[in-house]
Amino acid sequence: MPRNSMRLSRFYLPLLKETPADAQIVSHRLMLRAGMIRQQGAGIYAWLPLGFRVLKKIEQIVREEQDRAGAIEMLMPTIQQADLWRESGRYDAYGKEMLRITDRGDREMLFGPTNEEMITEIFRAGVRSYKDLPKMLYHIQWKFRDEIRPRFGIMRGREFLMKDTYSFDIDEAAARRSYNKMFVAYLRTFARLGLTSIPMRADTGPIGGDLSHEFIVLADTGESAVFCDKRLIAMKTPSKGTDFDGDLQPVIDQFTSHYAATDEMHDADEFEKGVAQKDQISARGIEVGHIFYFGTKYSEPMKAVVTGSDGKDTPVHMGSYGVGVSRLMGAIIEAFHDDGGCKWPMSVAPYHVGVINLKAGDEACDAACEKIYTELSDAGVDVLYDDTKARAKICSHGSDRIALSSGHRTARCGLWHGGIKISQ
Amino acid sequence: MPRNSMRLSRFYLPLLKETPADAQIVSHRLMLRAGMIRQQGAGIYAWLPLGFRVLKKIEQIVREEQDRAGAIEMLMPTIQQADLWRESGRYDAYGKEMLRITDRGDREMLFGPTNEEMITEIFRAGVRSYKDLPKMLYHIQWKFRDEIRPRFGIMRGREFLMKDTYSFDIDEAAARRSYNKMFVAYLRTFARLGLTSIPMRADTGPIGGDLSHEFIVLADTGESAVFCDKRLIAMKTPSKGTDFDGDLQPVIDQFTSHYAATDEMHDADEFEKGVAQKDQISARGIEVGHIFYFGTKYSEPMKAVVTGSDGKDTPVHMGSYGVGVSRLMGAIIEAFHDDGGCKWPMSVAPYHVGVINLKAGDEACDAACEKIYTELSDAGVDVLYDDTKARAKICSHGSDRIALSSGHRTARCGLWHGGIKISQ
Repeated sequence: MPRNSMRLSRFYLPLLKETPADAQIVSHRLMLRAGMIRQQGAGIYAWLPLGFRVLKKIEQIVREEQDRAGAIEMLMPTIQQADLWRESGRYDAYGKEMLRITDRGDREMLFGPTNEEMITEIFRAGVRSYKDLPKMLYHIQWKFRDEIRPRFGIMRGREFLMKDTYSFDIDEAAARRSYNKMFVAYLRTFARLGLTSIPMRADTGPIGGDLSHEFIVLADTGESAVFCDKRLIAMKTPSKGTDFDGDLQPVIDQFTSHYAATDEMHDADEFEKGVAQKDQISARGIEVGHIFYFGTKYSEPMKAVVTGSDGKDTPVHMGSYGVGVSRLMGAIIEAFHDDGGCKWPMSVAPYHVGVINLKAGDEACDAACEKIYTELSDAGVDVLYDDTKARAKICSHGSDRIALSSGHRTARCGLWHGGIKISQ
Repeated sequence: MPRNSMRLSRFYLPLLKETPADAQIVSHRLMLRAGMIRQQGAGIYAWLPLGFRVLKKIEQIVREEQDRAGAIEMLMPTIQQADLWRESGRYDAYGKEMLRITDRGDREMLFGPTNEEMITEIFRAGVRSYKDLPKMLYHIQWKFRDEIRPRFGIMRGREFLMKDTYSFDIDEAAARRSYNKMFVAYLRTFARLGLTSIPMRADTGPIGGDLSHEFIVLADTGESAVFCDKRLIAMKTPSKGTDFDGDLQPVIDQFTSHYAATDEMHDADEFEKGVAQKDQISARGIEVGHIFYFGTKYSEPMKAVVTGSDGKDTPVHMGSYGVGVSRLMGAIIEAFHDDGGCKWPMSVAPYHVGVINLKAGDEACDAACEKIYTELSDAGVDVLYDDTKARAKICSHGSDRIALSSGHRTARCGLWHGGIKISQ
């Protein structure tokens, strides 16, 4: 994690006064104005210090819930060999979204849009027996998809941070248990980020397979039309103490007991007949996670086999599970903002407390601020301390937040929860 | 950080019995055999869970020392626009080591080998006044350099993890203070990794500028010939309590008071005359860090100017400071190993303690192991618990280390410090 507390005089927080004309949605506008990101190309962004802090906090929550569910972290490279993708048949099939690269030795490579092939290669090289199963491996790495029309800032960028997990099991029943672990891990992850996510039946698309759920956060600016039963929204998130080695099927049954589907999978008849009028939600949603069970789609052509208890080789059953880590930041802002700016859930707020010195240079005022800054920091609170002499203009929005607007930095940006003003 | 403690039954640790024929140096051999990395192309590696743990621990130490020195973390993307590099004139100058990429819209891009241009663009967009200086920004990001002959595993890979910091100051004297901060931060960073690094006068190469030091770790397998005064090796690392806002010049003077130069900068006459015979070290070294002051080399052509106290615009004085984070792992192994395998410094050991259940399945034995595993983990110790039924063969090497060699996993890999055997 980045350093917890910070003096504004040392920080780099380039606020924008004007809203950039091409920023169509609120998360994109606020991230640009509050100095969280800066565009470096179509769909490519640098994460400035404030945005980076939020991104790392999101990443850490995603990591903790993967670890809790028993997945093992590793890291695969961004650049992959074309030949690996020829083994699965996806090199030609993937189309123009794959960024294809030729190196100085004329070798065909690509910037990975996902890692099914590579993890299958790694698995087949290291695992031989059914006794070594199940295995769940994940990494959190930058991916590239050459979108024809990148838009909405980091919500549909080309270079983006994804957490992708891969499960390896001896048969479909075991694979279903891995699928269920990720299902529950995802519910917990999004809940810790303050989001209500709804698992929806989804199309499997280019990943393939026959079992898949998207995790959708409702937001007016969502790209997908979604349809679901209102009762899903009130469901209780599985607790921290969930036994991931136990039977999770009842949890999955509960969360799939009511109608929920994205546009592609929507059955209007079923929706009308199966869901009471008062419970019908027809809305827009943002996809923040997607899980797949695809059996032996990759293990068969790529010969990722283990010796079973009967001594015979059998291709492993696989699943893959993605979370859009950078996209989540946009989804959180879409869900939590008002006219004053971002309203961060405490779990990902870049700073918890802002201390603003209203009379910098005054001895007593400086000393009081230093004391509060140090004591809060030592207590584990993330503090942003405005120690500059720029004229401060405090804008309080609600009881839990202060928007900083001081001196020449006149853009409003809701940075934190709670504020302490020191003016003598 | 990855989850602290782990059961071997859930971990993914694919040990190799055979030493791969093309692994020429010991760090490459050990990393492959101990299941830390797996090659995914020429000079491109996946970091398997064990190697990933060490990499993250190194990264965290690098981060902490950057933060301590006052640098601010952010994250720039891997893909950059060619036009940005045309502003500095380096797009054509950089040569074939730059991985050049064309996207679906025929835009010219590249996989960043370094970030001077991009950070200069970010700085000039956000900073206007000398009052906002000094600023030091850094990121830890994957880079790509299309080496004609990648070799030595992750020591000279093509895709590698680098920490790069950039400083912005009003004039040369102020820039020198930033340079000194990084100089001291680097001494501290390498010392915390257990390494004795020697700052040496170095050529500035394609970065440019006229003040530069390489930080070199002595190792027989080093790529560079180096020459230095023995007294440098005994110097005391600046303490944790170093005041980075104070005058660091005396520290720098001390560490540059004796002869030390890489091959390119070596002056045989000066070495012979200036250094007593008994203090002359002529050896091989591994470069683990490189710092540069290059004045206005980028800020002038790219128009990164601030308004000075006299109201006039002046280009900022810049420096850049790199640490090879992934390369450091190789350097540490080169420095610390024996016939039994890696001998990790405690600060980066993947696990601190190994608990090996010699009678898995026996009730009392299982319970005792569980108790020790849980209690150590709760106390903040990183434990790898071999809970498998594979036949264990303990190989103790020295008093502080155990090499695991159990059942079909017969490759030796020094994984940890301290071991606890439970056999009833």
